[in-house]
Amino acid sequence: MGADVRRDIDLAHASRLVNHGPTVLVTSAHAGRVNVMAAAWSMPVEFTPPRIAVVIDKRTFTAELVAASGRFGLCLPARALADATYAVGSASGRDLPAGTDKFARHGLAHFAGPVLGLPLVVDAVAWVECRVIPEPHAQAAYDTWFGEVVWAAADDRVFSGGRWSFRDDNRDLHTLHHLGGGVFAWPHGTVQARSSPGP
Amino acid sequence: MGADVRRDIDLAHASRLVNHGPTVLVTSAHAGRVNVMAAAWSMPVEFTPPRIAVVIDKRTFTAELVAASGRFGLCLPARALADATYAVGSASGRDLPAGTDKFARHGLAHFAGPVLGLPLVVDAVAWVECRVIPEPHAQAAYDTWFGEVVWAAADDRVFSGGRWSFRDDNRDLHTLHHLGGGVFAWPHGTVQARSSPGP
Repeated sequence: MGADVRRDIDLAHASRLVNHGPTVLVTSAHAGRVNVMAAAWSMPVEFTPPRIAVVIDKRTFTAELVAASGRFGLCLPARALADATYAVGSASGRDLPAGTDKFARHGLAHFAGPVLGLPLVVDAVAWVECRVIPEPHAQAAYDTWFGEVVWAAADDRVFSGGRWSFRDDNRDLHTLHHLGGGVFAWPHGTVQARSSPGP
Repeated sequence: MGADVRRDIDLAHASRLVNHGPTVLVTSAHAGRVNVMAAAWSMPVEFTPPRIAVVIDKRTFTAELVAASGRFGLCLPARALADATYAVGSASGRDLPAGTDKFARHGLAHFAGPVLGLPLVVDAVAWVECRVIPEPHAQAAYDTWFGEVVWAAADDRVFSGGRWSFRDDNRDLHTLHHLGGGVFAWPHGTVQARSSPGP
């Protein structure tokens, strides 16, 4: 994968990227350090302006970098990244020796986000850059960080027209949904609900 | 379905019910009125005590009932409820004539939750009762309500041992994940990530 399949998406559709509850990789950078961790707990909270909430445990190195820099990235892994997603969710980047980081350690190439310069995982299927909306109480009480989406992109083989398109022919690009203990499900079949309001 | 497949689950496992991002039905009751709406935006925020955040638009009848009663229910619909889920997410219960409600209008039988007495959808595959943790700022600024889970149960044909078990033989019980515009995906295949921390 790479830049050839990455398409900027209208910020009005940014909530659609995480509307269905995928596990995300939270990326961060500050003062020459970069980090990546997995998070199962995120959700949109507003369409316009597009805002997303994500739970980042205050003991993590990610929380430290996000607090210091005022920004975070979200990258959506697909099936090929299941092992790396579980691994970066299970170990901290704080204590890695100088000159290395969790991207390098887990074989995750990254590129620089165009607006905030955040490190974003090349082999993900969607990418978001967020500016932190400071909410000290929610951060302290619920480890919940609110961010405004300033840029979003997705792999156009699996997200187009403002919506995910999960099909048999692009199964390797379906998002991951953590069931617990390193077991991930992915969305497969879809159904179009009738829009009629009742019986 | 019904009470025969419903098993109380350990509150330590409550976050697992929504960890993978399913669409939920938010149920509420106050002063003789009951209501149900769909919400794609929810997430756990804490394991112990088990806490969940859910976005409830402040203009909804649900927000009014939840604010007045200090409690809300979450019910997870499966495939058979896709139409009803979309329908209750598209119309308000505020203006229905006296003597009816959205449960009745959309054919959703309900039972009373054992701890808070909330109306819960019989044909869902998991059920949660939450006490609101008052957070006026988050409610006003982000329509985000925090709740403490006081009771949780799941259909033991699809959730057991503290985890979802999505298999071919229980496909009709898989959770729904809203992609937008009434299109829902459901989790199908699963993968067990290697627990090794990396190369």
